[in-house]
Amino acid sequence: MPLTPDQQADIDTLRSTPAQTLRAVSPGMEAHLYTAHPVLDHGFVRVIDYMGDDAAICQAARVSYGKGTKSVSNDEGLIRYLMRHWHSTPFEMCEIKLHVKLPVFVARQWIRHRTANVNEYSARYSILDREFYIPAPDALAAQSTTNNQGRGEALSGDEAERVLRILRDDAMRCYDHYEAMISDEGQQGLARELARMNLPANIYTQWYWKVDLHNLLHFLRLRADAHAQYEIRVYAEAICAIVADWVPAAYSAFEDYRMGGATLSSTALECVRRMLKGEEVTQENSGMSKGEWREFQGVIG
Amino acid sequence: MPLTPDQQADIDTLRSTPAQTLRAVSPGMEAHLYTAHPVLDHGFVRVIDYMGDDAAICQAARVSYGKGTKSVSNDEGLIRYLMRHWHSTPFEMCEIKLHVKLPVFVARQWIRHRTANVNEYSARYSILDREFYIPAPDALAAQSTTNNQGRGEALSGDEAERVLRILRDDAMRCYDHYEAMISDEGQQGLARELARMNLPANIYTQWYWKVDLHNLLHFLRLRADAHAQYEIRVYAEAICAIVADWVPAAYSAFEDYRMGGATLSSTALECVRRMLKGEEVTQENSGMSKGEWREFQGVIG
Amino acid sequence: MPLTPDQQADIDTLRSTPAQTLRAVSPGMEAHLYTAHPVLDHGFVRVIDYMGDDAAICQAARVSYGKGTKSVSNDEGLIRYLMRHWHSTPFEMCEIKLHVKLPVFVARQWIRHRTANVNEYSARYSILDREFYIPAPDALAAQSTTNNQGRGEALSGDEAERVLRILRDDAMRCYDHYEAMISDEGQQGLARELARMNLPANIYTQWYWKVDLHNLLHFLRLRADAHAQYEIRVYAEAICAIVADWVPAAYSAFEDYRMGGATLSSTALECVRRMLKGEEVTQENSGMSKGEWREFQGVIG
Amino acid sequence: MPLTPDQQADIDTLRSTPAQTLRAVSPGMEAHLYTAHPVLDHGFVRVIDYMGDDAAICQAARVSYGKGTKSVSNDEGLIRYLMRHWHSTPFEMCEIKLHVKLPVFVARQWIRHRTANVNEYSARYSILDREFYIPAPDALAAQSTTNNQGRGEALSGDEAERVLRILRDDAMRCYDHYEAMISDEGQQGLARELARMNLPANIYTQWYWKVDLHNLLHFLRLRADAHAQYEIRVYAEAICAIVADWVPAAYSAFEDYRMGGATLSSTALECVRRMLKGEEVTQENSGMSKGEWREFQGVIG
Repeated sequence: MPLTPDQQADIDTLRSTPAQTLRAVSPGMEAHLYTAHPVLDHGFVRVIDYMGDDAAICQAARVSYGKGTKSVSNDEGLIRYLMRHWHSTPFEMCEIKLHVKLPVFVARQWIRHRTANVNEYSARYSILDREFYIPAPDALAAQSTTNNQGRGEALSGDEAERVLRILRDDAMRCYDHYEAMISDEGQQGLARELARMNLPANIYTQWYWKVDLHNLLHFLRLRADAHAQYEIRVYAEAICAIVADWVPAAYSAFEDYRMGGATLSSTALECVRRMLKGEEVTQENSGMSKGEWREFQGVIG
Repeated sequence: MPLTPDQQADIDTLRSTPAQTLRAVSPGMEAHLYTAHPVLDHGFVRVIDYMGDDAAICQAARVSYGKGTKSVSNDEGLIRYLMRHWHSTPFEMCEIKLHVKLPVFVARQWIRHRTANVNEYSARYSILDREFYIPAPDALAAQSTTNNQGRGEALSGDEAERVLRILRDDAMRCYDHYEAMISDEGQQGLARELARMNLPANIYTQWYWKVDLHNLLHFLRLRADAHAQYEIRVYAEAICAIVADWVPAAYSAFEDYRMGGATLSSTALECVRRMLKGEEVTQENSGMSKGEWREFQGVIG
Repeated sequence: MPLTPDQQADIDTLRSTPAQTLRAVSPGMEAHLYTAHPVLDHGFVRVIDYMGDDAAICQAARVSYGKGTKSVSNDEGLIRYLMRHWHSTPFEMCEIKLHVKLPVFVARQWIRHRTANVNEYSARYSILDREFYIPAPDALAAQSTTNNQGRGEALSGDEAERVLRILRDDAMRCYDHYEAMISDEGQQGLARELARMNLPANIYTQWYWKVDLHNLLHFLRLRADAHAQYEIRVYAEAICAIVADWVPAAYSAFEDYRMGGATLSSTALECVRRMLKGEEVTQENSGMSKGEWREFQGVIG
Repeated sequence: MPLTPDQQADIDTLRSTPAQTLRAVSPGMEAHLYTAHPVLDHGFVRVIDYMGDDAAICQAARVSYGKGTKSVSNDEGLIRYLMRHWHSTPFEMCEIKLHVKLPVFVARQWIRHRTANVNEYSARYSILDREFYIPAPDALAAQSTTNNQGRGEALSGDEAERVLRILRDDAMRCYDHYEAMISDEGQQGLARELARMNLPANIYTQWYWKVDLHNLLHFLRLRADAHAQYEIRVYAEAICAIVADWVPAAYSAFEDYRMGGATLSSTALECVRRMLKGEEVTQENSGMSKGEWREFQGVIG
């Protein structure tokens, strides 16, 4: 259970205190505000604030393109046009602020997306809680034998049990020692900023993360992708569900043009053209390497 | 008059249609929403949307610093502490979206602040309006004789009249020719993206500009400064008045620590220490150049 | 002629004074250093400095992926792999600094690429030169009748002549008045920061522009594209030629995967799969709008 | 010893293979290239590449300010002027690329500086080495009793010994288990991307980090400061020594105006003015809080 009763009470209070505003309001997003969506064993994602909606994207586009855009029959068509032609600035006009609780090794991947604002819980200043990510048995995957950066099948029961025992025991022992080192009972007590170095990377941290919609979609494209590590992908998927309710037209265009789309190289396009003319194209006469050809086969089915 | 009746009617409609939200609401900002604050002869600044308030800054800071921050007696004290110690990330948690109408030469200075999102009216796509900035007579300043990048006194009446006539005539003639070149009556009509090159830099453009509070305050520190060009300073001042209503505690700390503050060099601090001990410090024995000494005198009065 | 004899002499001196370095050196780039490549009638692009080469991209990738990358047979294969999978950070490890002279209306488009460092000639501080972009007759295009943001055919001889006369006359007259207003002979002389507002957008400015290779390639993809305005496209093309000499493997991968490639939506990919199975796909049964279908036809030939 | 014999041999080869270049060369920096400067027990900082020197800063400034800047007698004076007036763009024209080996908890602080390019060793892809930061006894500090985010005195011998034993034992045990989990001998072997979660935050990682001089100086101001955590400060200090050799004039101005300088608030400046007039100013009549007054006393000595 990721939330304490106090935290849940805070959320209930915030959700029961509406106020009036003249700003654009997204009904789908209002339904999400403050509520914690559980992710992994102790993590969550929740929306703290947002700015804009589908209409705000169109409004910004219309500032740029003036009266011409009025000819596009509706907002959905305009949004699809913008997404298709990589006109990214109107999507930057929406903003979201999330509160995320996540394991440190996930946070380390996440933070590499630089165009965002972050306030993270400080382990120099405060004491971390005893909460560690311990994978569910079906998420305990073996190293892929074909891909250095991937997972293979789930571990067998015996091996899984061994691994889970190690992860739990090491986490608990390291945390016990963390507490023992910072304690000031009968000793000086090690500085928090030093003691934290004993904590393994599956400990949970939390942060406020604020990002515009364009950069968020870029993050989701990479992190909700099948090649992303499972432990960050589940966060990305939880955010996808939120974005779909926030800006339904933008999210739908994103699914069609980005998540479900693919970029073909000049060489690959030429192969498609040859194949459509009835020519038999093989890896050997395609101009592609074996790796590229395999990926190309995956795309064109 | 910067707004057409249609635009004013749109604003009136938006201002008369409140909705319910669970988000943080800043009453001072709600009063500003959509209303156009006139700047220069045809320009304006108006708030299209915002996210966060003083409490949101503190909330983000408390995520970082945990329970420790609860000891700071109140939000205002915490905000002053953050501003004093350059803890900028909590201020990044607030966001504002402005609609600005401004002369092109002002837009060219403004856009140099890169950490912002912009959608500008496209003169490739649409036809610019016949609106030019013509300075008020008391803003028609002579070149400074002591500072290459500055203004001196206002021009005398005769010279001012000459200059205003030039600015008006050239603007009108260039715009007449712009219209003539793009016209498709009895001719093909030059492409808009080419015809615009004939328009002088005092023509008005407009954009949506979205920025977080930290970067906005940085912009305001530079552009509301006495050394900034008058034509951008009046925009910065109009925004200052809005920010003061939006996040009163943050703006007050900004005024004390940034706008009214000054950075002293190591050498200058040493001079202050010597002077406070009663030593007579002159430029010659200060370790400063003449320019630095003059600026130092300005700071310590 | 874009360069004065003094400038050319400076360039000759710089090019005749090699020094020793332990850094990575790109022979193709050394051949470009300082030399001005003419663009448009008075503009140029020249390389002032650079950092890194193809090997530096691979070196950075190998830090990330460790020993695994050694299995990729060569640098070129690794670079193609990185480009294909949008692994952008190794490309960020190369940097280029250009000196560009360009019309103001081109500079206004260019500056919208925010992830770069810029030092532009200041018209607050210094006096602009009497240099204006006047298009060559075959670049004088009519407004497109099918695309609000595009050009159609070249103007006829008569109309072209009329337009060129206007552009030349207005530029000269506005510049005459600029000079007259800032003159301090027999008058106070208007401040430079004000007088510049009388200058049309085809006047030339110049800047130093520094950018990493990843962001440069993104700029080139958008601005060397057939839909970009001709006047910025010629700058992008001049830079493409430089990059091809600087990092030949990266540029070749960029041409294949970006410039010559295309992103197909989920819907478009499904159509390709159906067509390859022999199904007859039309706009009506494609799931695409007319605009999308037309673009799709363009891609698959 | 942070380097393997192979790595040292690579460095020796690189340092013994000069090439010719037409670019700006900084002799001070050439002396540093590739050499590893040890930091902490297993870490290092080394320069992989650089762009620009003091003259390049001035050259960029002169593009902006034109002929006016020639009146400043020399480059050093111009650089001091730029630093004093926060003209940051000329400093952005220099760039540095570092190879850094550092503990993960230091990397987590470091990465919060977003305006930089990074390629980090991937623990999804490759196996981390058995190298952990174990503090020297005199760096084992107690938690500060007055500052939540700080250190007090060094731990006593007994307590220090206890802490060091814990840190060493937990690191070794966690690493043993990491190896055991990923081993494929007699079992499937856990995926690397999962096994790494068992490793504590004092394990070493490494990255290439590329940043412009302006943002580097901002980083150094914060991280070479007395309030920064010791373990990141020693990296910042090692980089300071490198920058002082690279761009001596810029570094000297940075020391005077930034590292040794202080920003006084409007209220603090007013107090200085009153004190210089002979008035007795106390915290009570200063208008400052107790915290501010204490900091102010620290600044004016």
